[in-house]
Amino acid sequence: MNQDYIIPNNWSIIEEGFNTDRVKSSESLFSIGNGAMGQRANFEEYYSGPTFQGSYIAGVYYPDKTKVGWWKKGYPEYFAKVLNAPNWIGINVQVNGENLDLFTCKVDNFKRELNMQEGWLSRTFTATLKNNVVVTVKTKRFLSLTLDEVGAINYTITPVNVDATITYSPYLDAGITNEDTNWDDKFWEITSINSKDNKAFIEAHTLKTEFNTCTFMESECFLNDKKTDITPKIEKLENKITYNYTADVDAKSSFTIHKFAGYTVDRNHPKDKLISAATKALEKATSTGFNALLESQKNAWATIWETSDITINGDVKAQQGIRFNIFQLNQTYLGTDAQLNIGPKGFTGEKYGGSTYWDTEAYCLPFYMATKDQNVGRNLLAYRYNHLEKAIENAEKLDFSNGAALYPMVTMNGEECHNEWEITFEEIHRNGAIAFAIYNYYRYTGDYSYIPEKGLEVLIGIARFWHQRATFSTKQNKYVILGVTGPNEYENNINNNWYTNYMAQWCINYTVETIANIKENYASDYDRIMSKVNLNSDEIKKWKDVADNMYFPFSEEHNVFLQQDGFLDKELTPASSLKNSQRPINQKWSWDRILRSPYIKQADTLQGFYLFEDNFTIEEIERHFDFYEPFTVHESSLSPCVHSILAAKLDRMDQAYSFYLRTSRLDLDDYNKEVEEGLHITSMAGTWMSIIEGFGGMRVRNNTLSFSPKIPKEWDGYSFKVNFRNHTIKVSVTQNKNTFELLKGEELTLMINGKSITINQNNLITA
Amino acid sequence: MNQDYIIPNNWSIIEEGFNTDRVKSSESLFSIGNGAMGQRANFEEYYSGPTFQGSYIAGVYYPDKTKVGWWKKGYPEYFAKVLNAPNWIGINVQVNGENLDLFTCKVDNFKRELNMQEGWLSRTFTATLKNNVVVTVKTKRFLSLTLDEVGAINYTITPVNVDATITYSPYLDAGITNEDTNWDDKFWEITSINSKDNKAFIEAHTLKTEFNTCTFMESECFLNDKKTDITPKIEKLENKITYNYTADVDAKSSFTIHKFAGYTVDRNHPKDKLISAATKALEKATSTGFNALLESQKNAWATIWETSDITINGDVKAQQGIRFNIFQLNQTYLGTDAQLNIGPKGFTGEKYGGSTYWDTEAYCLPFYMATKDQNVGRNLLAYRYNHLEKAIENAEKLDFSNGAALYPMVTMNGEECHNEWEITFEEIHRNGAIAFAIYNYYRYTGDYSYIPEKGLEVLIGIARFWHQRATFSTKQNKYVILGVTGPNEYENNINNNWYTNYMAQWCINYTVETIANIKENYASDYDRIMSKVNLNSDEIKKWKDVADNMYFPFSEEHNVFLQQDGFLDKELTPASSLKNSQRPINQKWSWDRILRSPYIKQADTLQGFYLFEDNFTIEEIERHFDFYEPFTVHESSLSPCVHSILAAKLDRMDQAYSFYLRTSRLDLDDYNKEVEEGLHITSMAGTWMSIIEGFGGMRVRNNTLSFSPKIPKEWDGYSFKVNFRNHTIKVSVTQNKNTFELLKGEELTLMINGKSITINQNNLITA
Repeated sequence: MNQDYIIPNNWSIIEEGFNTDRVKSSESLFSIGNGAMGQRANFEEYYSGPTFQGSYIAGVYYPDKTKVGWWKKGYPEYFAKVLNAPNWIGINVQVNGENLDLFTCKVDNFKRELNMQEGWLSRTFTATLKNNVVVTVKTKRFLSLTLDEVGAINYTITPVNVDATITYSPYLDAGITNEDTNWDDKFWEITSINSKDNKAFIEAHTLKTEFNTCTFMESECFLNDKKTDITPKIEKLENKITYNYTADVDAKSSFTIHKFAGYTVDRNHPKDKLISAATKALEKATSTGFNALLESQKNAWATIWETSDITINGDVKAQQGIRFNIFQLNQTYLGTDAQLNIGPKGFTGEKYGGSTYWDTEAYCLPFYMATKDQNVGRNLLAYRYNHLEKAIENAEKLDFSNGAALYPMVTMNGEECHNEWEITFEEIHRNGAIAFAIYNYYRYTGDYSYIPEKGLEVLIGIARFWHQRATFSTKQNKYVILGVTGPNEYENNINNNWYTNYMAQWCINYTVETIANIKENYASDYDRIMSKVNLNSDEIKKWKDVADNMYFPFSEEHNVFLQQDGFLDKELTPASSLKNSQRPINQKWSWDRILRSPYIKQADTLQGFYLFEDNFTIEEIERHFDFYEPFTVHESSLSPCVHSILAAKLDRMDQAYSFYLRTSRLDLDDYNKEVEEGLHITSMAGTWMSIIEGFGGMRVRNNTLSFSPKIPKEWDGYSFKVNFRNHTIKVSVTQNKNTFELLKGEELTLMINGKSITINQNNLITA
Repeated sequence: MNQDYIIPNNWSIIEEGFNTDRVKSSESLFSIGNGAMGQRANFEEYYSGPTFQGSYIAGVYYPDKTKVGWWKKGYPEYFAKVLNAPNWIGINVQVNGENLDLFTCKVDNFKRELNMQEGWLSRTFTATLKNNVVVTVKTKRFLSLTLDEVGAINYTITPVNVDATITYSPYLDAGITNEDTNWDDKFWEITSINSKDNKAFIEAHTLKTEFNTCTFMESECFLNDKKTDITPKIEKLENKITYNYTADVDAKSSFTIHKFAGYTVDRNHPKDKLISAATKALEKATSTGFNALLESQKNAWATIWETSDITINGDVKAQQGIRFNIFQLNQTYLGTDAQLNIGPKGFTGEKYGGSTYWDTEAYCLPFYMATKDQNVGRNLLAYRYNHLEKAIENAEKLDFSNGAALYPMVTMNGEECHNEWEITFEEIHRNGAIAFAIYNYYRYTGDYSYIPEKGLEVLIGIARFWHQRATFSTKQNKYVILGVTGPNEYENNINNNWYTNYMAQWCINYTVETIANIKENYASDYDRIMSKVNLNSDEIKKWKDVADNMYFPFSEEHNVFLQQDGFLDKELTPASSLKNSQRPINQKWSWDRILRSPYIKQADTLQGFYLFEDNFTIEEIERHFDFYEPFTVHESSLSPCVHSILAAKLDRMDQAYSFYLRTSRLDLDDYNKEVEEGLHITSMAGTWMSIIEGFGGMRVRNNTLSFSPKIPKEWDGYSFKVNFRNHTIKVSVTQNKNTFELLKGEELTLMINGKSITINQNNLITA
């Protein structure tokens, strides 16, 4: 429904015309965040129509108790719910006593813009109120990257046809709840509501998790851009505080409010100092002022774009799509806080709960490694190292022992915080992604030091898990892995998922190899680690036996590895036979029907071919692509990007391009008809990979960065930059030529289309 | 732990000596019920130790909202929680101002008895209170079968060593909660608390489900058995009302209270008439008086035993076990209310939720058919007929169409009220049990009229479901049934569960055959039904195609049907290799580990061989028994009885006897270490079947009742009665001879050990 209402533009997401049916979708699409907090693009003023209110604070969640019919041993106690936090953006507006409410007004010339280059959200419109007063409104809002506890709003109203008495009522509201709340569920408890001069504070803490927060605000008013001191009328309710600023405004004069507001949280401050920290934040913000704060916002975003921008010429929608992806990733996670991670919906919705999925390692790590300082990637790995003990405890809950580690499927604090057995107990391939990320980090950055320092212990815990998880099948005379859910979550509790078995084998082999290397080259680390984890060569031999004798289901008839033992028992009708009215099947079909169908949610076997492409011939990759893709419905946001990269590798540029469009504009065009619920943040890194690895053909092999650029016929050209081992390389591709430029760093040898070429800062290589 | 503390006795369950560790187990074992309500054997007086309080009203439940991480289409909205109802049994006792509390007193000569012959529960003990007053206490309590809204308590205290001031504080308490409650969950809302003369009332309704109830009480006091008028001091709290009766009691004198109390419910009365209905019930009870009410209780139980008793000579534990089973079944369900059904924990605990499982059809129906009026069996079938529309809706939620019916796995009102996909979506074999019950009812009672009247519509809905649920596998060139959970709930989402596939085939064949018969013999019913369900011969042909080409997984190597496609992929170590410390595995192992193991919770393939024994040779049955039983951990209460019956059939009487002991004393000896949570009511009917069908060899074939009695070597003899088509037959078996007696009805021809023998009321047949 809301497909195609976003106006193509190189740097902005723009909506023109007001349509109440699109409000919830736009609230997702125009979301803003600064890594520490974020919000859906809810209106500041009261809105009586359908809306999905959402303000989120990084790391603040609620443990929703697991309720199942028959409790089974090992079940996680709770599901971490992403919590809607107290609302500070609210500014109600009354004009001659009448509420400004876009749901009941006549709205003209409505325009909403999310400026990605500069990092702000704005609205302009003309409203005719029920009392026939016509006003024009301009708003601008941003969450500061420089003062990351603070957001700022500039709200200007101009009566057009009459003089009017206008009241701004900026407020803080802690009487919020979650969209997905249950009967009467309450998540926040308010400790205090205070006002001091122009500043207001609500202290509230989450129930159970006891996160303490202070939500704060301070406002300034302007008449015709001139600051005016209005003594506010203050209203305190049980869970809300409002300041009412009233002014008589002549027709055509402007009445403006600047509201500075935000959160201080006890993750960063002592819990009894939240108000004083808030006071300081407000003092900094007000003394800087809206305009100067906005300037530093623009500068901060310019710095981000400097290292991460991708340009696409000749295809505005593709350009808009990729920038939207890069912008949202940076809004969600900036890599500056090693305790945080990348939630699949970022700050744009409640769905999925928790913050950390395998998405981080499998999809996001490459993006952050190539567009930010190497330290950001290391932080993402260290996050898992810091959770190793919890991962071992998690495995123990499932009866594993001897230091076997099973990382949670979803987590906030290292504990499992998802609560469905078919996911948490069975979707164990996540362990593989976490091990692979260690390898991938070294492969990309060349920083081996992480492995003896932290990585090897994680690898050992994971290898132990795979060893224990496999069972020997007399029937197959091989080790099998029973009862898993692969990346394709449309199958549960299957046997011998090819991807999982392959990952298990790879993890063991890589760990064994790494142990040998550490033994040889980092003797003291080796001794420290071996004695810490109590590992000996007998145990390693047993691991190897499992890896060397792993079973992989294979179909002679189709000459392909089978996604799982029972795949061929299904009715193998291709996804193309599904009527449009039946899609997405996860919204149209019962779970029962989906499980029995051959339809694949996302790359599963192909995910393995993507990660381990060098272990297979191009013919093998092609054969598996042609076998599995037709059954794939791509209803996971993580699917199209992998298919785009593989299609590009197979020189199927039309297919690669269409998958690229799907991944890059998944939310903008709402392919999966769920954008109202929030954006698909982690898959946005997959979009980035589609260009860099898919079209650009970037790989790292033997410490050498290589490219083999291709270009969709629809584009005139594209360019991207990557940060590689203290070099910044810019790659520009057109239909006629490819150029390579070294923007930073010393001379570097690249492989370009299989040829070794050296670049330095003085020359632009065309190849 | 609490194994073996129950004293063997032919007619009573007796516990001697007070052990606080056993309180919760005894609360389950000594539970009482009258079909309309029931209670755990909680003490009347205050008890500060560990206890599990439970009072339950038939049909009163709470819909606990389903909470899952990722919602999937078709999920049931709620889980029906068995609700703890307001407590009316409470009588606090103070002696010289000191609470009588068995947890803090010294307790001597404690004896608790559940008299199954007469239907009452008693305790006697001597307590030395903290103030050194010694008292003897005698209590007796029952839930009246004749006035089924009323229970009565006789509580007598005698100070032994001193004169004492004693206060009885009978109360009603609606401030109760569930054991399995979640944070702050509230299920009841109190509407009014009233007292009028000696009567007290609390009106309360359940949240969401809006069941309105009135809990009521009235008490009378006696000094040395002489009625005494004491003006009570009345205390009203927010959710509790207490009457305090105080008397000065000489040493060795007795002070007695009779408390009459219970519930009136808006299932039986207009909701604004609950207090007046309660008043009437109390007037009846008090005018009858405790002793006369107890007399009629004894008579009512004598009538039940008259038709349902089983005697066992020479084995008191076996005798006690079988009577305990028959007693508890009758306490749970009496067949008088077609809206009610047989909850798996009856009125003895909260676990499992809901009231109706496939247990009713698969296990309970034969018991009720043979021990009660034929109408009771018909009521049980009609319960499902009345839910047919809901079953069709339930199937529609899972994308089935055209009148396909999927009965819920668990229900209170026809809707699915369990909430785990692997159960509700996949444990579809329940549909088979419901169809089989129709066949079984006719087979046993000879009452075909139920089928044209109601049964055929149910069969057609079920046949349609199976037809749609099967898919054609090109690989097998057969119809397969993917993604199911069989009776063995230790495997989920498996393919081609043999039992399920067999049931599906049988259901279709039986339905097709029944349609033909109705067409020929009940033409007008046929026309009515066919036009109602819009069925034609083309559709029937398609059903038949599925039934005729159903796939059954088979192992050539083992020469057995496989429980499911992947069974042989498991590590096939027998259950005998499990250490005792690892059992029951459902308490010791994670769900993950259980799913991957070969261990079978309960008869699965063997359940099919039990139901359809005539379709297999004895060698086939034996081979499958020997293959599957070694993997079976019997952690479902429904397992040992089926194994006992099959073992008896295979002439393995030692094994049959040990399974019999396990099923009949499952709760008394707490095999599965969970009796604290409540009793396993529905499996108790399986115990009955173990004797009647297993040892007695009772079958009905071609309208003829047959027996082939066997007897465990441990027993001197046993006898049972069955009600068969208006005949009551008594079968007595000893080590030397078997006798058959017709107690009621006209001459009847039986098959005894394969020989046709006619009995009538005048002769006792020895055969």
